[in-house]
Amino acid sequence: MRIEVICTGDEILSGKTVNTNFSYISRRLQEVGMPVTWETTVGDDREELIRAFRLAGERADAVIVNGGLGPTQDDLSTPIAAETAGVGLMLHQPWLARIEAFYAERGRVMPPNNRKQAMLPEGAEFIDNPVGTACGFAINIGKGRFFFTPGVPRELHKMLDEQLVPRLREMAGMESVVYLKRFHSFGLGESRVDNMLEGVEKLAPPGAVKLGFQAHYPQLETKLMVEAPTRREAEAVVAPVAEEVQRRIGTFILCEDDQTLEGTILEELGKIGGSVAVAEVGTFGGVGGRLARADNGRGIFQRSAVCSRPNDLMHALDLSSESQALAANAAATVRVQTGTSHGLAVVIESSREPAQPPFTIAVATAAQVITRTAALVGNAERVRTGGVEMTLDTLRRLLEGKPTDEGMDFERAAT
Amino acid sequence: MRIEVICTGDEILSGKTVNTNFSYISRRLQEVGMPVTWETTVGDDREELIRAFRLAGERADAVIVNGGLGPTQDDLSTPIAAETAGVGLMLHQPWLARIEAFYAERGRVMPPNNRKQAMLPEGAEFIDNPVGTACGFAINIGKGRFFFTPGVPRELHKMLDEQLVPRLREMAGMESVVYLKRFHSFGLGESRVDNMLEGVEKLAPPGAVKLGFQAHYPQLETKLMVEAPTRREAEAVVAPVAEEVQRRIGTFILCEDDQTLEGTILEELGKIGGSVAVAEVGTFGGVGGRLARADNGRGIFQRSAVCSRPNDLMHALDLSSESQALAANAAATVRVQTGTSHGLAVVIESSREPAQPPFTIAVATAAQVITRTAALVGNAERVRTGGVEMTLDTLRRLLEGKPTDEGMDFERAAT
Repeated sequence: MRIEVICTGDEILSGKTVNTNFSYISRRLQEVGMPVTWETTVGDDREELIRAFRLAGERADAVIVNGGLGPTQDDLSTPIAAETAGVGLMLHQPWLARIEAFYAERGRVMPPNNRKQAMLPEGAEFIDNPVGTACGFAINIGKGRFFFTPGVPRELHKMLDEQLVPRLREMAGMESVVYLKRFHSFGLGESRVDNMLEGVEKLAPPGAVKLGFQAHYPQLETKLMVEAPTRREAEAVVAPVAEEVQRRIGTFILCEDDQTLEGTILEELGKIGGSVAVAEVGTFGGVGGRLARADNGRGIFQRSAVCSRPNDLMHALDLSSESQALAANAAATVRVQTGTSHGLAVVIESSREPAQPPFTIAVATAAQVITRTAALVGNAERVRTGGVEMTLDTLRRLLEGKPTDEGMDFERAAT
Repeated sequence: MRIEVICTGDEILSGKTVNTNFSYISRRLQEVGMPVTWETTVGDDREELIRAFRLAGERADAVIVNGGLGPTQDDLSTPIAAETAGVGLMLHQPWLARIEAFYAERGRVMPPNNRKQAMLPEGAEFIDNPVGTACGFAINIGKGRFFFTPGVPRELHKMLDEQLVPRLREMAGMESVVYLKRFHSFGLGESRVDNMLEGVEKLAPPGAVKLGFQAHYPQLETKLMVEAPTRREAEAVVAPVAEEVQRRIGTFILCEDDQTLEGTILEELGKIGGSVAVAEVGTFGGVGGRLARADNGRGIFQRSAVCSRPNDLMHALDLSSESQALAANAAATVRVQTGTSHGLAVVIESSREPAQPPFTIAVATAAQVITRTAALVGNAERVRTGGVEMTLDTLRRLLEGKPTDEGMDFERAAT
């Protein structure tokens, strides 16, 4: 089945807005086994829209059109759908009632031009939008089935997942569900993990589980995709493969599915009634910022002292003299000062040279202070991003009882 | 002149990579008066690439093709350019020498498959790439002039600005230069600024200056676009309009052109030999993070105490009792503790309700502590983003001698 996407709107065409709707649609359809073959972007322009709809209708079995369903004059997708399908527009009374109720619930009266959003091409299939006033619809143009979707990301995502994916899978004769198991790791490159996981799919029936990767430095996402008649069966099929993935790259796995590294750390600390304070140099506050966002006022994260030079950190914490062990001292000091269970520190100094100097991470508990010194590959920005990840990862490893000194692929070879 | 863009590559088509190259190209061409009419994305697929090139060559005067110039087998743009143009490939000896030199400078030998990057369609116009191994080229396909560009953003940006824009403007018969004067403001919405600036263009000859906006909360960018035979003349034409913009929205302007708010603050502090320390609650470290990034180790920014609850900030700074004036106390305390000229504090508490509570900003100097309490419109995330901006903006206003209590469009009306 050939699937195309048409993105509409001057904001997207002019580059004012980056087209994240398209990448969302394409990634999502790829995940459920229906890759997109072609994408077209046109503006809010009658002639170009007509041309784009006609061309896609000559080539594709299914076309997803995004945007242009709003109430204003420059929202043209619906009238042009009707025109290219050779039908008129008619009022969809139930949807008009829903829009009016939508406004009434918010104590407002529907502006008259929102009535336009309830005008659909004659014979079109109505597609629900439970979170906005732009409903979707489907209609045939040429040899293609066209699905019209709203431009607001939240509304698009819901409609795509709940309404379009099932319809497209039915069109493609796919009756099963697709289940995606995801692992987030840090410290191993994509090709290394690919090698380490060679053959894992064979723990499931032939062809049942597909292995994929998405690298977004510093993390790597490893995906197991499985298709089965039901979600329960999919989980059963993937289970032995997932276990083997955990066995092979286990200590490098930060978290799974929708979890985050910082969320995992706070969860582990919560279990032991712990808490954490941070001192950081050269991170632009990246460690504390991520912990603060995940903590969101629960108080497991207490505070971070963010400095831009090691000297300033010494003054901030009243450390009396410059020291090789600044990170270790800082971690121990913030722990005592705040009365937290864990003190975390990182001191990154950057250089204008391509090769960045090593930096030091320290984690202090009542019992011990562990440190790790690392030299990462890449420019200052990349070392900063990797350094923040490695700092959080070191605390995760300590909390989970995993080794805190395993070699990482992003480290520079010692010279 | 009709301009189209074709983006190639499985990474873009599958949504793995968000297509920021396209938005860059389109925005840049719009700025120089040559908007893009149509964009097509296809994968690394022979048949689809041929189809996309042929269709664009039937419609457009100029086509920019992005990506597919790499050394590997799945980089197909060059051979398919030759095929659709009806010519063969031939070695571009000077470029091969450049690639070899590129590797030699880095102490490496050119891998054999990089030779592919010096094979250009016969009769193609060579386009230089001074920062990478993928040169560009131009060739006619159908009625269109096709410009092939590398997918690496840094290489694309340079080639677009330095090589393609002049060629396209020449094709379009535009002999003048385009100059863009930009103002970044905070606190006034787009429609308000649009009203306030009504008629400013009339201070220049009719049609010479075009006014435009780009809102990216919390900032608004106001652009004056002018076309003139030379840069100097363009600046002269825009000058009276720019002055009038400054006069009308003056105190709300954070900075101009490529400047940033945090850069402006550090520059002002630098001028007076000043420095700044920060205490922040509920910002996820956004204030200190931005100052640290702009400071980058110069030491004008000293440190930030980042907490996630007001209580933690009291402990961090040893403030003895809960106080209505926590922000004011915190600003004064960090200033004294660090010996900086300015102490900056913000305390944001968020709520699960749609309406967020007011928050307080304080700036302390040796002479005074000023505070500002604000309630912003929007959810917790939006208030956090706006609160960080407002905190930095309050310091900017103090440093520049501008009022620190002007009403903002994003503030909730008092009830």
